[in-house]
Amino acid sequence: MNVYFACSITGGREFESIYQKIVAALTEDGHEIPTSHLAQSDVIQHERELTPQDVYERDTSWIKNCDVLIAEVSVPSHGVGYEIGFALGIGKSVLALYQEGRKVSKMISGNLDSNLTVSLYRTPEDAIQIIGNFLSKAG
Amino acid sequence: MNVYFACSITGGREFESIYQKIVAALTEDGHEIPTSHLAQSDVIQHERELTPQDVYERDTSWIKNCDVLIAEVSVPSHGVGYEIGFALGIGKSVLALYQEGRKVSKMISGNLDSNLTVSLYRTPEDAIQIIGNFLSKAG
Repeated sequence: MNVYFACSITGGREFESIYQKIVAALTEDGHEIPTSHLAQSDVIQHERELTPQDVYERDTSWIKNCDVLIAEVSVPSHGVGYEIGFALGIGKSVLALYQEGRKVSKMISGNLDSNLTVSLYRTPEDAIQIIGNFLSKAG
Repeated sequence: MNVYFACSITGGREFESIYQKIVAALTEDGHEIPTSHLAQSDVIQHERELTPQDVYERDTSWIKNCDVLIAEVSVPSHGVGYEIGFALGIGKSVLALYQEGRKVSKMISGNLDSNLTVSLYRTPEDAIQIIGNFLSKAG
């Protein structure tokens, strides 16, 4: 499947190693992840080479073309919140994942859109299993 | 005018005093701010009395009924990012304001929607003036 993986960039990178584990697992399972570079450590430097407008156009185009969007929402991010709203607005299935103990905005946890699934995980391995179940149902 | 003021809640409250100055100035100018309590210090405690679903339904209903949405985006927030996307998706005019030196997601700074204005400010007084100009044009 074509999976748009959304994670915090400007908002903070403290969960970067978890983003990388998720993207590695998805790639290993044969999924296409247009945003895989967003999990990498050099993302902020690389994204500087593009104008903000180019990034916006590229990312929304990827959302339009994806099968599902998976968002890691443990670290607050305007971009990820925007992307979740954008994806739901065009009828995409979205999985929002957060680590147990992190606080999640009620615009996500209280969102009743039937295309949104919100799940908590304890370990990266848990997260990968939850993603696998979500993709099996979506596929 | 009916102004939906969006600010970080779960994402962090370090800009709370600026939120309060903005809401006070808008109220003084005679605008109706359904979200004015979100700028107050006891917001997190008060919002606990509602279910996340109630908060989501209330806030999206307020966005549907507002004339414009004004978002303070200096502190990363999934909720505010979602609200900006939701408001633009239904054709509302949006002003996103941030303090000089803060980093803003490219999903906002690079967004080419003609209903979105992104502005930086130095002082709260600057922010209030920018808001006044925006509302004059929108009114």
